[in-house]
Amino acid sequence: MSQTPNDLTSQLVDNCLPGNSIDCVILGYDEQQLKILLLKWKHEDMWCLPGGFIRKDEDMNQAAQRILEMRTGLKSVFLNQFYTFASAKRSKLNTEVQLTRMDHILKGLHGVDDRFIDWIKERFITTGYFALVDIRKTSPHPDVLSEKCEWKTISSLPELMMDHNEIIVKALEHLRIQLNYLPIGMSLLPQKFTMRDLQKLYEAFLNTPLERSNFQRKMLKLGIFVRHEKHLTGAANKAPYLYSFDIPKYNELLEKGIGFAY
Amino acid sequence: MSQTPNDLTSQLVDNCLPGNSIDCVILGYDEQQLKILLLKWKHEDMWCLPGGFIRKDEDMNQAAQRILEMRTGLKSVFLNQFYTFASAKRSKLNTEVQLTRMDHILKGLHGVDDRFIDWIKERFITTGYFALVDIRKTSPHPDVLSEKCEWKTISSLPELMMDHNEIIVKALEHLRIQLNYLPIGMSLLPQKFTMRDLQKLYEAFLNTPLERSNFQRKMLKLGIFVRHEKHLTGAANKAPYLYSFDIPKYNELLEKGIGFAY
Repeated sequence: MSQTPNDLTSQLVDNCLPGNSIDCVILGYDEQQLKILLLKWKHEDMWCLPGGFIRKDEDMNQAAQRILEMRTGLKSVFLNQFYTFASAKRSKLNTEVQLTRMDHILKGLHGVDDRFIDWIKERFITTGYFALVDIRKTSPHPDVLSEKCEWKTISSLPELMMDHNEIIVKALEHLRIQLNYLPIGMSLLPQKFTMRDLQKLYEAFLNTPLERSNFQRKMLKLGIFVRHEKHLTGAANKAPYLYSFDIPKYNELLEKGIGFAY
Repeated sequence: MSQTPNDLTSQLVDNCLPGNSIDCVILGYDEQQLKILLLKWKHEDMWCLPGGFIRKDEDMNQAAQRILEMRTGLKSVFLNQFYTFASAKRSKLNTEVQLTRMDHILKGLHGVDDRFIDWIKERFITTGYFALVDIRKTSPHPDVLSEKCEWKTISSLPELMMDHNEIIVKALEHLRIQLNYLPIGMSLLPQKFTMRDLQKLYEAFLNTPLERSNFQRKMLKLGIFVRHEKHLTGAANKAPYLYSFDIPKYNELLEKGIGFAY
């Protein structure tokens, strides 16, 4: 970003809605683990979700896409709103230290003025958006405020800024509920995968082991897979079947839902 | 409410978060129809959802309960957040006329000052909350701003203030998705009901007719009903079975979900 620090103050304080922000939970899957895209503040050991503010003339859903691109470089990601976080104390959660740090970072490094500091210290209500993305197709890079933009393993997250850990927990809860009625995996698994790969993915989301034969039976019954021929070359004979998603059928199920069809 | 008009201005403008509101979608079921609790403004043919503003020191989830009670008299209703509405134009939706009306209503009837009018005309982001309630157990009454507080049939709503019709559509979408993985009916049906009563309830939510035998088979398979003995008194012999919910089993299913158990 080529903006100067003073641009940032006027862009935010004068042109954005006061007291409202957006935070993005961007999830991917790699090496059988759920990962999340986080930013690290410059010169401080403090990580956070990619977030930002809503312009006064901007729909919030559009703001979410713009903010994600601005802060991480990820373009055209379809984001789903999942919850609005508005406890009275969220801006103060483990932030006595963090606000001091932010003062230091913001004033010291970017020369933003007191007007910005006052604005940012007010109570903020933040709306969470999530997306599932194919990690291999992303090349995230940090913005002007950040030193790093990296995929981190969900199961071993650092303590994050404000209530960002809680926002992630809520996003995962939301996704676990979605597993009850929507298929998953299209943007997370390689084009061809085994039933075991799929099971590992579900286990990562549900954070619990699943019973193999029951899982495979229920999955195959959904009718959203294409099974590929094995290459009959000796050892390969013992290899498990590879599957890919039957895209039209997958999308149809995405549309009508799995669940309890009455 | 015993507050004077000037109380209202200072209570809102000085003590509430600017630009954020809450709207409540309170649904009930009566005479085989979905109903919603609406308020009618004093002296104008303008209906709206019961809504209000968040105090600066108040959690939004608590504000929702307080607002619902303040505006309709309904106490201790458990409200679920379902979506935050934040299109840039929502405050302007068919409101050229409505804002003029509000000016008139507010200034004329309550003597609120210009400070309030300026505050209320800013862009607002509103968070929707819903609840399903037993109509028979409620006795709603209008607040100081309203002339009526009534249950209205969902299928024949008037045009509402701002984007309130859209908020209701979204709440119903959300509930239809929930029908895929959560049982419903506990607070909506009388204690004893027939399978046909239950089917009518689902049909009202899904807004589509369902096939009787398939519906009953799937429902009974959930194992959340107690079947009651028929009274063997001639004609009653032909009457359908009455059921009630097996409350512990219903609650268990509410907890673990119906859906696609892996």
